[in-house]
Amino acid sequence: MSGQYRYQQLEHWLRQGITEQRWRAGERLPSIRTLCQERGLSKATVQHALQRLEAQGLLEARPKAGYFVAVKPAMVPAPSGSFPNGLASGVGETQAAVEPPRLVNVSDLLLDIMRRSAAFDLLPGPNSDDLPPGIVALNRCVGRALRRQRGADYQYYDDPAGDSTLREQIALHNARRGWPVQPNQLCITSGCQHALFLALMATCQPGDVVAVESPGFYGVLQLLQQLELRVVEVPTSVATGMDMDALADVLKRWDVRACVVSPAFATPGGALMPIAARQRLLDLAQQHNLAIIEDDIYADTAQSTAPDPLKAMDADNRVILCSSFSKSLSRDLRLGWVSGARWHGRIQHLKLVTQLASSRFLQQGVAVFMADGSYGAHLRRQRQQLRTNRDQLLAQLHSWPGPVRASVPEGGLAAWVELPGHVDTLAAYPLGLEQGVVITPGPLFSVSGQFSHCLRISFAHGWDAKRMAALAQLASVLNL
Amino acid sequence: MSGQYRYQQLEHWLRQGITEQRWRAGERLPSIRTLCQERGLSKATVQHALQRLEAQGLLEARPKAGYFVAVKPAMVPAPSGSFPNGLASGVGETQAAVEPPRLVNVSDLLLDIMRRSAAFDLLPGPNSDDLPPGIVALNRCVGRALRRQRGADYQYYDDPAGDSTLREQIALHNARRGWPVQPNQLCITSGCQHALFLALMATCQPGDVVAVESPGFYGVLQLLQQLELRVVEVPTSVATGMDMDALADVLKRWDVRACVVSPAFATPGGALMPIAARQRLLDLAQQHNLAIIEDDIYADTAQSTAPDPLKAMDADNRVILCSSFSKSLSRDLRLGWVSGARWHGRIQHLKLVTQLASSRFLQQGVAVFMADGSYGAHLRRQRQQLRTNRDQLLAQLHSWPGPVRASVPEGGLAAWVELPGHVDTLAAYPLGLEQGVVITPGPLFSVSGQFSHCLRISFAHGWDAKRMAALAQLASVLNL
Repeated sequence: MSGQYRYQQLEHWLRQGITEQRWRAGERLPSIRTLCQERGLSKATVQHALQRLEAQGLLEARPKAGYFVAVKPAMVPAPSGSFPNGLASGVGETQAAVEPPRLVNVSDLLLDIMRRSAAFDLLPGPNSDDLPPGIVALNRCVGRALRRQRGADYQYYDDPAGDSTLREQIALHNARRGWPVQPNQLCITSGCQHALFLALMATCQPGDVVAVESPGFYGVLQLLQQLELRVVEVPTSVATGMDMDALADVLKRWDVRACVVSPAFATPGGALMPIAARQRLLDLAQQHNLAIIEDDIYADTAQSTAPDPLKAMDADNRVILCSSFSKSLSRDLRLGWVSGARWHGRIQHLKLVTQLASSRFLQQGVAVFMADGSYGAHLRRQRQQLRTNRDQLLAQLHSWPGPVRASVPEGGLAAWVELPGHVDTLAAYPLGLEQGVVITPGPLFSVSGQFSHCLRISFAHGWDAKRMAALAQLASVLNL
Repeated sequence: MSGQYRYQQLEHWLRQGITEQRWRAGERLPSIRTLCQERGLSKATVQHALQRLEAQGLLEARPKAGYFVAVKPAMVPAPSGSFPNGLASGVGETQAAVEPPRLVNVSDLLLDIMRRSAAFDLLPGPNSDDLPPGIVALNRCVGRALRRQRGADYQYYDDPAGDSTLREQIALHNARRGWPVQPNQLCITSGCQHALFLALMATCQPGDVVAVESPGFYGVLQLLQQLELRVVEVPTSVATGMDMDALADVLKRWDVRACVVSPAFATPGGALMPIAARQRLLDLAQQHNLAIIEDDIYADTAQSTAPDPLKAMDADNRVILCSSFSKSLSRDLRLGWVSGARWHGRIQHLKLVTQLASSRFLQQGVAVFMADGSYGAHLRRQRQQLRTNRDQLLAQLHSWPGPVRASVPEGGLAAWVELPGHVDTLAAYPLGLEQGVVITPGPLFSVSGQFSHCLRISFAHGWDAKRMAALAQLASVLNL
């Protein structure tokens, strides 16, 4: 043990204790204070060792309760469907008839919103606040990785699959969620959208039909348009996700090639698919020979434990998991990953051919950030913050005049809001702009023209006085 | 002027002097020593100001001669076709008959070479040398950009077109080469391969015919395969580029949609297209309504002045320029750009839809690196180094037994070597591997099976003792 740092010695001792069942699965470890006293260590050293073990999936941190020996996390229960604070329930119930497959034409409005960097902010603009501690730590790790570049590193492209240290960390992180993925089953991408693009390119030909959630993620609709795929929109609850009866019906009527779903906290409403629906989806996929493309990007925004991915139940090797750090850590990293099931070889080849490689120092920086427990610590802080942000939003909506219904997501960055039928959120968009308020109207989340009385409101940002004022203005812009 | 740094004051004074023609185009500025003495400044301050003016395109640095007021750089003359050191001439003369369009099937060998990070290194392996000063400066700039992140920057995606400060610098850099591009005509990509991919996706449909150089860049062949485009290979000289008579003939016989060319130092041989051929290419493009996709990635590896891009002559708005920093600065940045001519809107939209955005801090770091003249200084040092590397390679080849012919490129990172007809470079590949030597056999640069007696040898890396030994081994592996 000589030559090891003190935190490494403690880490080793704790790991041994867990292996030898000195502490069993689910049991609480001695407190940080106790460990400091008994082992003669500083608080920082003890915390560092605990965070590293957490990052390795051996421990679980529970706020204000301490560190526990990890058990395979259970599925988070689906939202009950009842709303706190007197908000009406039943949001996102499926009523629309399914329309036949068609080519996609996404509105220019979306491009305008994206150009304003406003997809997740009512009130985009310069911000001079201090960085949160997780981002400071991340930047430090990336900076250190840069300074560690040696020799002719800069003259070589990275492995097309991505840096192995980052793939190991992402594999460990997912193993903790109950998906024991191997690093060689992962390919690093330039974000989740890039992963979805590769997955669709690898599984579909122009003209093929793809089933998607409705309302669902506009980025997928844009991809279908570019790849000249036909879409069939499956009614989707913003509480429990895609309606499996409706999907079964769609699969009987049309030859569907792939289905894009977001089982964990789907945008726009934050739906969480119950286990029974997940199993049914996999059964249907096998029966109809579908590729399932799982958008897992919101999993780490869970306000309690991140649910298992659908991919963890994929006995038939037909679920392609796509994800990235953009929602849980930083949108500016542009690092995502894909695990391509039976199409993985083709996906990895497509990544190589269309982009060669990813930036190695950036990946190595993030890998260190994950390995030393900083990512876990960041998620714990953020979890708390997101729950607070969500509750403040719901409380505010409660004070709006007229019948307003909103989803109550247990994860994700936004709630789906249904307004009285006369409200036209598309018409309200330019009115909002005049006051500096950028809204995300409901019709963006479908190609059908539905949802004009709905909108997605983000709670990714803290409700400071200015954003609170913007939210209040929004009620008048919407003519409530 | 108060509040300005001293280098800014000097920069201002010099710029004024140039505007007022105190020094005219092509004239030498006072020496650094004179400026230090007359203005009472340190050498570092004077150099900083001069480098900044160079980066802005107002000055040109000539090694050991000083700084000159820039004139629009003239076209670099094409290589004469005669070889120094007794090497035989006539390499890459066009003899092969043109074959009809076909779908592409790139060999797995290429993937193997890429996995070994060996496309530009005979002898890949760990390297613990110090970083060159240009990369140290680059990393410092990127690290600083990271530390300058403020507030919620990490919560926003970058502008899909890319960071405006980087686009401004790339525009300035190209304006110096005689192509007065505006920042809004540029879109940042994840490297040149990504730019080529977007350009082909925006201009072609599956089954379309694309004309390419032969021998030419295998990355383009891989893209054509993935996009299900048909290729027609146009005989290409490794001294003067694509044969325009052959192209004219191809265009008469088949309905060609796009033509990918690399007028400045094309791989594998480093060809430089003469102006007359460039003009003829543009005329043919207009006549046959072609999209021209210009791969400009090697321009900044010029051993003297970087030639104008073909794009600078593009009166008809049909040349899509693709480039990146991978050959001239670092392969690990994964930053490139595209200027999409009449297809620019579609290309930018494709970038947004398939990848959302690029990493902002990385772009800002590179922009500062360019703005403060460090990129120019890096290119000057590298230019010298590349010429030395090339000359050492050619001298070594001269000592090989048997008739060996090699191109003598004035830019790029490799020479094209023609061996006696009996040599089979594909068969030599595994033999080389056994000795740790990775070669790039000629057949990789075509889909026709031609060029089996040729190979590309890189001079990107310095010829240290180990690489020199590998090069000597190569002669025996090739059974010369």
